[in-house]
Amino acid sequence: MTEARYDVLGIGSAIVDIIARTDDDFIRTHGMIKGTMALTDAAQAKRIYDAMGQAVEISGGSAANTMAGIASLGGAPCFIGKVGNDKLGEIFAHEIQAVGVDFHPGESRPTKLPTATCLILVTPDGQRTMNTFLGACTELGPNDLDTERLKAAHVTYIEGYQWDTPAAKDAIRKACQTVKGAGRKVALSLSDPFVADRHRTELLTLIRDDVDILFGNEDEIFSLYQAADLEGAISRLREAKVLACMTRSAKGVVVFDGQTTIAVEAAPVTKVVDTTGAGDLFAAGFLYGFTHGRELTNCAKIGAMAAAEVISHMGARPEVPLRDLLVKNGF
Amino acid sequence: MTEARYDVLGIGSAIVDIIARTDDDFIRTHGMIKGTMALTDAAQAKRIYDAMGQAVEISGGSAANTMAGIASLGGAPCFIGKVGNDKLGEIFAHEIQAVGVDFHPGESRPTKLPTATCLILVTPDGQRTMNTFLGACTELGPNDLDTERLKAAHVTYIEGYQWDTPAAKDAIRKACQTVKGAGRKVALSLSDPFVADRHRTELLTLIRDDVDILFGNEDEIFSLYQAADLEGAISRLREAKVLACMTRSAKGVVVFDGQTTIAVEAAPVTKVVDTTGAGDLFAAGFLYGFTHGRELTNCAKIGAMAAAEVISHMGARPEVPLRDLLVKNGF
Repeated sequence: MTEARYDVLGIGSAIVDIIARTDDDFIRTHGMIKGTMALTDAAQAKRIYDAMGQAVEISGGSAANTMAGIASLGGAPCFIGKVGNDKLGEIFAHEIQAVGVDFHPGESRPTKLPTATCLILVTPDGQRTMNTFLGACTELGPNDLDTERLKAAHVTYIEGYQWDTPAAKDAIRKACQTVKGAGRKVALSLSDPFVADRHRTELLTLIRDDVDILFGNEDEIFSLYQAADLEGAISRLREAKVLACMTRSAKGVVVFDGQTTIAVEAAPVTKVVDTTGAGDLFAAGFLYGFTHGRELTNCAKIGAMAAAEVISHMGARPEVPLRDLLVKNGF
Repeated sequence: MTEARYDVLGIGSAIVDIIARTDDDFIRTHGMIKGTMALTDAAQAKRIYDAMGQAVEISGGSAANTMAGIASLGGAPCFIGKVGNDKLGEIFAHEIQAVGVDFHPGESRPTKLPTATCLILVTPDGQRTMNTFLGACTELGPNDLDTERLKAAHVTYIEGYQWDTPAAKDAIRKACQTVKGAGRKVALSLSDPFVADRHRTELLTLIRDDVDILFGNEDEIFSLYQAADLEGAISRLREAKVLACMTRSAKGVVVFDGQTTIAVEAAPVTKVVDTTGAGDLFAAGFLYGFTHGRELTNCAKIGAMAAAEVISHMGARPEVPLRDLLVKNGF
């Protein structure tokens, strides 16, 4: 096997986040479930947007955030995702490339669909509730993959969110074949408890057949395995034979390698401003460590460090070079 | 004269800011003059954008920021400006309306030009250097004004920047006629030292004939009057018979009412993150006080308070309700 050109290649939705502060009443009034992601159509997105307060726009997308994090740590990431032929598409492409991610926008077929946006409401506790309009992301399909890039990545990282789009699911399955055929690794993020619930059977099959590293928070992993507690979840993860990272917000993270459970504390944060991207950046730190031969405990600590940076400000991309924090913290 | 429906009506460029941190080398390498605004064409904007790092997008525009500030203080502002028929236009319109500004996008003639963007580079000292692509803003003309709205505003606030666009200049002249005819007041912001220099004769004529309140920083006022020092500038302002506010960054502000000079200190700031909008928000605070019958010293203090909030974070719009700060500071 040749040396990997990329540490991690992410496949996911290319989204520009539109982020506004709000209160819990707004979340309730609009029938949102706090802390989760809901897909919206254009009309529903407009209704929410019209009611939202002043916002800022920052590129997002779960796997894209993870790749931005890996670049910020000094790693070599690649991202495959579809943007529309519009200004937000330009902005997305600019921002991911500006931090050093090799961005592959899929085959250059013209799309009439707009770049995806996610209306993110941040409540005073820092929790984020997301409403995604997928737009051009719904066109991601097998033809958008680049086989050579996939073969050249140490790990290919997939969003569970992709299961909401039939063509993307086909793309992921094709990607897994290529990646496993090349002797490389597949990582999966469960993305959201409802995603885990909606696509349980298919995700369990994917995990059994192809996934080497699984990321999820407690809600997501409990939802996937219909587990009632940590022990129940661990016993199902043992059967699944994956390296699993379960993030537990302020309680830190539990890493399970099939035999041993490693618990790592959350890194200290002065004030939780916006939790958007916490899981994405944990995955970035963990995968950076993993692809650089670090011990699992250190991988998890780097993940916790990256997550702590991103929840200390608005937006799901690092505001400071994580490489500096890595050095400062002696990792 | 009937009671004013608006405290202040702003006429200016409707711009979405694209803000990135950079270093002084970048400013030098790209031939920019630190702390100023340069107009760019599409090709030049693309060159700068391609070279810029990760950015965030936040609505801006000088007079628009001022109107957002007045709304945040609890005042009643209106803004007239042109956006493109595109996503950034939607974003601009959403963000200004979400904070409570009555947004009048001019006559609803379809434009093919994109919404204006401003590439803002913020150096480690917090100073901002701006590169504006005016796009749809170049179409602002006399027909975009709404006479009834102009007559209904206590003060009409104009950006010096508008002098760079011939049709906008005609619009401003028409607006001044309407405003003065209705017995209302005109305020002018000089915007930029190069703007003051490029359009000196015309701006001096406007100030003599129509302007009641003049805003500018030291560089801008010195540039306009070709003054070498504060005394020289004050003597020219005395001749001009305007109420003048000269902002002096960390040195605070000097207000000159034709006879008396009032000096007000800058409000304390823990860390200057991004000076974008400092002048705009000073004007917001001053005009809020002025249109609510406050003494000039208090007007300047409210301005200093609003400016201090906006330079403590990225972006030129207040992040917290300025009304709360007003109450907290006992104004």
